[in-house]
Amino acid sequence: MRGCRLVSTIPSPAATVQDSPLVRAARGLPVPHTPVWFMRQAGRSLPEYRRVREGVGMLEACRRPELVTEITLQPVRRHGVDAAIFFSDIVVPLAAVGVDLDIVPGVGPVVAEPVRTRADLARLRDLAPEDVPDITESVRLLVAELGATPLIGFAGAPFTLASYLVEGGPSRNHEHTKALMHGDPGLWHDLCAQLARVAGAFLRVQVEAGASAVQLFDSWAGALSRADYARFVAEHSAAALASVAGLDVPRIHFGVGTGELLTLMGEAGTDVVGVDYRVSLTDALERTGGRWALQGNLDPALLFAPWEAVRARVVEIVEEGRAAPGHVFNLGHGVLPETDPDVLTRVVELVHEVSAR
Amino acid sequence: MRGCRLVSTIPSPAATVQDSPLVRAARGLPVPHTPVWFMRQAGRSLPEYRRVREGVGMLEACRRPELVTEITLQPVRRHGVDAAIFFSDIVVPLAAVGVDLDIVPGVGPVVAEPVRTRADLARLRDLAPEDVPDITESVRLLVAELGATPLIGFAGAPFTLASYLVEGGPSRNHEHTKALMHGDPGLWHDLCAQLARVAGAFLRVQVEAGASAVQLFDSWAGALSRADYARFVAEHSAAALASVAGLDVPRIHFGVGTGELLTLMGEAGTDVVGVDYRVSLTDALERTGGRWALQGNLDPALLFAPWEAVRARVVEIVEEGRAAPGHVFNLGHGVLPETDPDVLTRVVELVHEVSAR
Repeated sequence: MRGCRLVSTIPSPAATVQDSPLVRAARGLPVPHTPVWFMRQAGRSLPEYRRVREGVGMLEACRRPELVTEITLQPVRRHGVDAAIFFSDIVVPLAAVGVDLDIVPGVGPVVAEPVRTRADLARLRDLAPEDVPDITESVRLLVAELGATPLIGFAGAPFTLASYLVEGGPSRNHEHTKALMHGDPGLWHDLCAQLARVAGAFLRVQVEAGASAVQLFDSWAGALSRADYARFVAEHSAAALASVAGLDVPRIHFGVGTGELLTLMGEAGTDVVGVDYRVSLTDALERTGGRWALQGNLDPALLFAPWEAVRARVVEIVEEGRAAPGHVFNLGHGVLPETDPDVLTRVVELVHEVSAR
Repeated sequence: MRGCRLVSTIPSPAATVQDSPLVRAARGLPVPHTPVWFMRQAGRSLPEYRRVREGVGMLEACRRPELVTEITLQPVRRHGVDAAIFFSDIVVPLAAVGVDLDIVPGVGPVVAEPVRTRADLARLRDLAPEDVPDITESVRLLVAELGATPLIGFAGAPFTLASYLVEGGPSRNHEHTKALMHGDPGLWHDLCAQLARVAGAFLRVQVEAGASAVQLFDSWAGALSRADYARFVAEHSAAALASVAGLDVPRIHFGVGTGELLTLMGEAGTDVVGVDYRVSLTDALERTGGRWALQGNLDPALLFAPWEAVRARVVEIVEEGRAAPGHVFNLGHGVLPETDPDVLTRVVELVHEVSAR
């Protein structure tokens, strides 16, 4: 494995991925215990991650199969989580179709030429499996290592991709994006339709290589009102999710700060609605009417509190989750870089312990 | 006025502040037109502001009465808004009670020694009018200039103040704050009670000098779940608002991203609940049961769209606001620095025109 340590098998209580707690919970089937994984579980909170990333830029790290495999497996080994999440970045498929961008440490993705006109849009093209042979290879390596532990494929949602492209980088207020959306709805919809094809193709590559679930991640959707989400975004996220609809993998749809959008995000075509920590699972269940399994929603900042406070909240979330058609325990946002990884391991143990049927 | 230009009178359709559309709308009384003002209307979007701020640090600018007066009046003159908002910063009262901090351009408030222990808390003290004679002077100058146009006093809410103190500066995730809140609730409540006294005293100074309304601004409240807000924050915001309860001025309570918290923010003791742009006024009215007037809620990013898109949304918000017990038109967050000030002026004219009874 070219310098990366891999264990030969990852233990899993299920015989096959289809029987795994994650896949079953996502489908609303009974599970032996609530499955748990953490957004950004593969990443900066782990010393072994920081070690293998030394001197390797983020975009490069996402395109080296042996490194992607190692990084994706690290939290599975360490924490015993119920799923691996494919290590990637939201902008990887954009770079793969030729968008000139870089991921700048401490800043995020920076796009050389923002996309704001029809001529800019014409520079974008569809993503073919041949653009990302490394992704196919990484997924195959991972699936072989993971055995019955599911690998969750990953892509950024069209709105979030559009925001990076239109703003030229991360934005707090998304003013150029919203100006385009409201000012030239025709161009906006064409841009998002293009990005939905790219995101959908990126998910499909992962599923066809062996990923057994997917998460569509809409980092910035919480910056939209429900009316704007419905009018300008929902159909494109639906198109991205539809790309893997026939492939028999559960789909998870998550965004940050999306308490107002949960039902629309469910209706975009998903099995699981991811819930931000700001809305309780009980409220989320009421809002979504029990139509989807739920994922969430421990506040990642709470992991910095003493264990007794963490413990109490974890138990509460597991209890709330029992009322949902299915529950995948997760954070309500990604793991923060300064998080003590031992606390994450204890959370996994606790979720398994208190949810055991 | 020591180098600052002041017009001698600001025209207002009302004979007195008590008859002004803002004060009446906040009290749920009939108005000749919907009053409108903008959070951060005094600030970086105005060239005349950037001119007078040249070479003057933010904290210093907030403590020079002639400058505060000029800056506060600028948007009233330019846009014809229905209220002035006292030009200040959330951390001004903290600096006034001796907290060693600075407002760093491009960063925000930076606190030299974060407050995380009981010994740190012991360094904080109450705010007396003698700590801020310049604030009293600024308000008096302003009230004399403004005539029947109300001046809204301003203070940051205890949670937001606490976050700055505990984190040592602006924070995206508030992990130290939440760790303290959950890890040492006794210390947390004592800290917030202290900050409520400081914020409340700061509001009271402004009202006693002549401000005719107040806004308690909780920038970061949207980072909390409803359960955490109820348990750790609501009582302290209530205490700050209670400081001016007997002074016959309408109170406005606003926070960003607080769709889940609107009723709790109303119940903290206010006349007006400020609504973020993410939640429609119609939804906010339903959630709050018509118990309070509403303020809001044009997305500030929408001001970057073509006028027809802005116009359509403004008209819609004015219509939605008619169903509320009272409606103060505002943005759903502060004016962004790159905003074209002429668009703000047109919004004021449009709100007045379409809401005229």
